[in-house]
Amino acid sequence: MKRNDRNNASIGKKGITKRLAQYVTGFDHGDMPSEVFHAAKRCLLDWLGVALGGSSHRGVDYLLHVAEEVGTESKAIIIGRGRKADILHAALINGYMSHVLDYDDTHLESFVHPSAPVWPAIASLSAMMKISGKDALSAFVLGYEVENRIGRVLFPHHDERGWHMTAMVGGFGAAAATGKLLRLDAGQLSQALGIVATYSSGLREMFGTMSKSLHIGKAAMSGLYASLLARSGFTSSEKVLEAPRGFFAVNADECDSRTVVARLGDGFEVLQNSFKPYSCGVVTHPIIDAVVNLRNREGIESQDVVAIEAEVHTMVPDVTGKKSPTTGLDGKFSIYHCIAAALVDGACGPDQFSDERVNHPDIISIRKRASIRVNPGFRKHEARVRITLGSGRRLEEHIPFARGTPQNPLTDEKLTEKYHSMAESVLGSKGAQELAEEAWAIDEVDDFQGIIGLTLPSQ
Amino acid sequence: MKRNDRNNASIGKKGITKRLAQYVTGFDHGDMPSEVFHAAKRCLLDWLGVALGGSSHRGVDYLLHVAEEVGTESKAIIIGRGRKADILHAALINGYMSHVLDYDDTHLESFVHPSAPVWPAIASLSAMMKISGKDALSAFVLGYEVENRIGRVLFPHHDERGWHMTAMVGGFGAAAATGKLLRLDAGQLSQALGIVATYSSGLREMFGTMSKSLHIGKAAMSGLYASLLARSGFTSSEKVLEAPRGFFAVNADECDSRTVVARLGDGFEVLQNSFKPYSCGVVTHPIIDAVVNLRNREGIESQDVVAIEAEVHTMVPDVTGKKSPTTGLDGKFSIYHCIAAALVDGACGPDQFSDERVNHPDIISIRKRASIRVNPGFRKHEARVRITLGSGRRLEEHIPFARGTPQNPLTDEKLTEKYHSMAESVLGSKGAQELAEEAWAIDEVDDFQGIIGLTLPSQ
Repeated sequence: MKRNDRNNASIGKKGITKRLAQYVTGFDHGDMPSEVFHAAKRCLLDWLGVALGGSSHRGVDYLLHVAEEVGTESKAIIIGRGRKADILHAALINGYMSHVLDYDDTHLESFVHPSAPVWPAIASLSAMMKISGKDALSAFVLGYEVENRIGRVLFPHHDERGWHMTAMVGGFGAAAATGKLLRLDAGQLSQALGIVATYSSGLREMFGTMSKSLHIGKAAMSGLYASLLARSGFTSSEKVLEAPRGFFAVNADECDSRTVVARLGDGFEVLQNSFKPYSCGVVTHPIIDAVVNLRNREGIESQDVVAIEAEVHTMVPDVTGKKSPTTGLDGKFSIYHCIAAALVDGACGPDQFSDERVNHPDIISIRKRASIRVNPGFRKHEARVRITLGSGRRLEEHIPFARGTPQNPLTDEKLTEKYHSMAESVLGSKGAQELAEEAWAIDEVDDFQGIIGLTLPSQ
Repeated sequence: MKRNDRNNASIGKKGITKRLAQYVTGFDHGDMPSEVFHAAKRCLLDWLGVALGGSSHRGVDYLLHVAEEVGTESKAIIIGRGRKADILHAALINGYMSHVLDYDDTHLESFVHPSAPVWPAIASLSAMMKISGKDALSAFVLGYEVENRIGRVLFPHHDERGWHMTAMVGGFGAAAATGKLLRLDAGQLSQALGIVATYSSGLREMFGTMSKSLHIGKAAMSGLYASLLARSGFTSSEKVLEAPRGFFAVNADECDSRTVVARLGDGFEVLQNSFKPYSCGVVTHPIIDAVVNLRNREGIESQDVVAIEAEVHTMVPDVTGKKSPTTGLDGKFSIYHCIAAALVDGACGPDQFSDERVNHPDIISIRKRASIRVNPGFRKHEARVRITLGSGRRLEEHIPFARGTPQNPLTDEKLTEKYHSMAESVLGSKGAQELAEEAWAIDEVDDFQGIIGLTLPSQ
C-alpha cells in the first residue's frame, strides 16, 4: 500500500483544487496555535537574513538593469538596495535574492524551499494594500501549506525527471498567500491556482547558473500576478490539479493526487520546516555536519588528511555530483567542494561559495581526496563520514539527522546568529538588530510594509 | 526508420542549441529570397488584423487593469487601444490579443501558431531601439524558423500529454527574433534560449478560458525578457536543448532532438505557413470547408437538415470534442458548434464565436444533429462530410487540403479581405487601408515602430 493511501482511502479526486482553495479562504487565524505563529516568525527572520545576504548578488544588478530598460514604476521596495520597482518586478527580484545563496529554508518531504517564493509575494502586496503582521503570518502559513502539499504529490518523480521542485510549486504558495490577503473567494482562488499551474516551469539544467534563482523569483511573481488576475475577472480552469490533463496528470502521472488534501486542517506543514546552517543543497548537510564535527572534535589539520569517504543518500551524487566546479554557484552542486570547504574552513556559508574559494588550491587539493558512496538505506538527512590521516589513523562520524531539520532544529539563538551574519553587512549592527526585533514582534504590527522599510541599507 | 532519421544520420546531438543560435546570429538577410520576404509580410498583415480583432476582448481590459495596479510605465503601444504600457506588459498584452480569436496563423508540422508570440516581441523591442522594416522581417523569419524546428521535435507527443504547443515553444521564436535584433552573440543567444526554456509552460487544460491566450502573451514576453537578460550578463545553460536534463529530455523523451538542426539553412519554414479562414482550431477547418461548400453549392437551408456526419482526423475529437459549449471561447473547442455555425451562417469567424451565437437555439438545434467519426488515414487538413436532408437526399464533400494550407493557400486578396474584416472596426476604413499599405511596403520602411503607431483606434 502506497504511503498516504490509508489517509486517502475516503478521499475522492473530485474537486481537490476547490477544496484546497476553500481551506485557505475559510481559514481564520484565531484557529492558529501560538507555536505555529512562532514557526512562521522563524521563517520570516531567516528569510530576511538570506534575502539581505543575497541582495548584493550580481544577478540582482542584471535584473534591476533590465527592469529599468523595460520601464518600471517605483512602487515596492527592493530589499537591501535602497530603491523600488513595480510590484511584479519587486516580487521577482526579491524572490531571486532570497534563493541565490542556497541558504533559504526547506520542507524535506516535498523538497520545496517554502519561504523564498511566498514572503516576497506578501512583501510586494503589502506595498499595494495595508496588511497587518498577523494577517501576513497566517497568509504565509497557508501558502506554506499549499505549496508543500502540492509538492509532496510530485516529489520525487518530478525532481528525478529534471524539474526544479520549488520552481514548479512555489507559485501555488505565493498565490494562496496573496489570494487570502486579497480576500478572493474559493472560485477565484481556484482560478488563481489554475493560472499559476499554467505558468509553472523550471529545469534542473539551470542549477549552477543564475537562472536557478530566477525560477524562485518567477514563482513569487506569478503567484501574486495570478491572484491579481483572478480578482480582476480573468478566467482559468477551476480544477487544474485533478483535471484529466491538469497539472498532476501532465507532470506526474504516477502520483496519488488525493494526498494534496489528506488530513487538511489537522496540522500545519510549517512545523516541519528545516533551516539551513549551510548555504548549499540540503542533501549535503549531514555530510558537512560530520566533517565539521570531526574537524573540531579531533582538531584535524587539513594537510594531514589523506582521504575522506562519505556514505550518502541516493540524491547526493545526482544533485551535487560536480567533480570540478569552477564558480561559486557551481560549488553548491559539488559535494566534493562542500567536504573540502567544511574540512579546511570548518564552515559552508556564503564565503565558502565565492568563485575565489572554489578555485583556491588548498580547497582543490582536499576536494581531490574526497569520495562518496551511496547507502540506499539512508534518509535524506543522514550520512556517515570516514577520514583517514597521514598517520594511518581513521576517524568516523555518523549523523542521523542533519542540523536544522525538525529532529535536530536550530535554536532561535542560532537562527538569529545566522541572520546577523548576513544582515549586519547590509544594515549595520543597529539596523540589523532593529529589523530582528520587528520580526519577532511582527504579530503586534499594524502594517507589514513597515518591516520591509527596515531593509534599506545603512549609509 | 523514423521520419527525419535519414536527414539526421550525420548529425550529432552535441551542441545543437549553440548551432541553432549560430545560424540565427550569422544569418544575413541579403541571403533571403524575395518570396520569403513576401511570406513574412503576409504574416505581418494577418497578425495586425487578428491583433486588432482581439484588441477589444474583455481579457485585454483585465490585463491592462492589473498592469496599472502593479505599476507600468508608458513605453510601448498596446495595439488598438490608444495607450501604452511598459515593454514587457506590452509584449504580454499584444500577445494575448493576437491569439484570443483563435484566428492567427499555424505551422502544421509543429502545430505551433508562429506569428502571435513573435511579432508582439519585435513590436515591443522596436519601442526600445530603432529597427528597420527589413530587419524586423528577417528577425521574424528567424524566430519562425527556430520555434517551429523546436516544435516539430516535440509534436505530437507533447501536445498529447497535455501541453499547449505554442505556449511551450513560442518563446524560443520571440527570443531568437529579438536576440538577432539586439545583436547577441551565439553564446548569449544560447543562454537566452536557456532562459526561455526554463520559463516555458502552458497546459491544454486552459483551452476555453482566457488563460490559453495568456500563454501566448507569456511566450512573447519571456522571449524578449530572455534576450534582454542574456544581453545584461545574466547566466543560464548554453545547451538547454540537448542536455541530459534539458528541455527535450524533460519534455519529450521519445523524440529525436537532432531534427531541430536537420537541413538548417536549406530553406525557410515560413514558406510552410497556413493562414486561418476561420477563427478556431485548424483541425476543424477542412470540416468547415466541406460544410460551407455543400451549403453554398447546393443552397441548403439548415432547417431541412436531418443529420451531418463528418469523417475526421484523429485530433478532432481530442482537441474539439466539447459537445455542449456554453461560451464563445468554449465553442472553438466544439466541432459540433463549428459544423452548426458553418451550416447556419456559412461562416466561422469571430461573430460565430460570441457567447450569444454559441447559445442560439438555431445553432444548438443543428449542433445536436452533427456527429463525427475518426478516419485514421486522414491528414490533419483533410475531411469528408455527409449531409442528409429531410427529403432523404444525401450530399457528400471531400476536402483533401483545407483552405489556407500551403497546398490550398489564401491569396493575398483573400488575406487582405480577412484583415479588413477586423481592422476596419477599430481603425475605420481609411486607417485600415493605410496600415495595410504600410505592411505591404514594410521592407522599405526605416523604423518598424511607425507601423505599430498606425494601430491607434480611430476617434
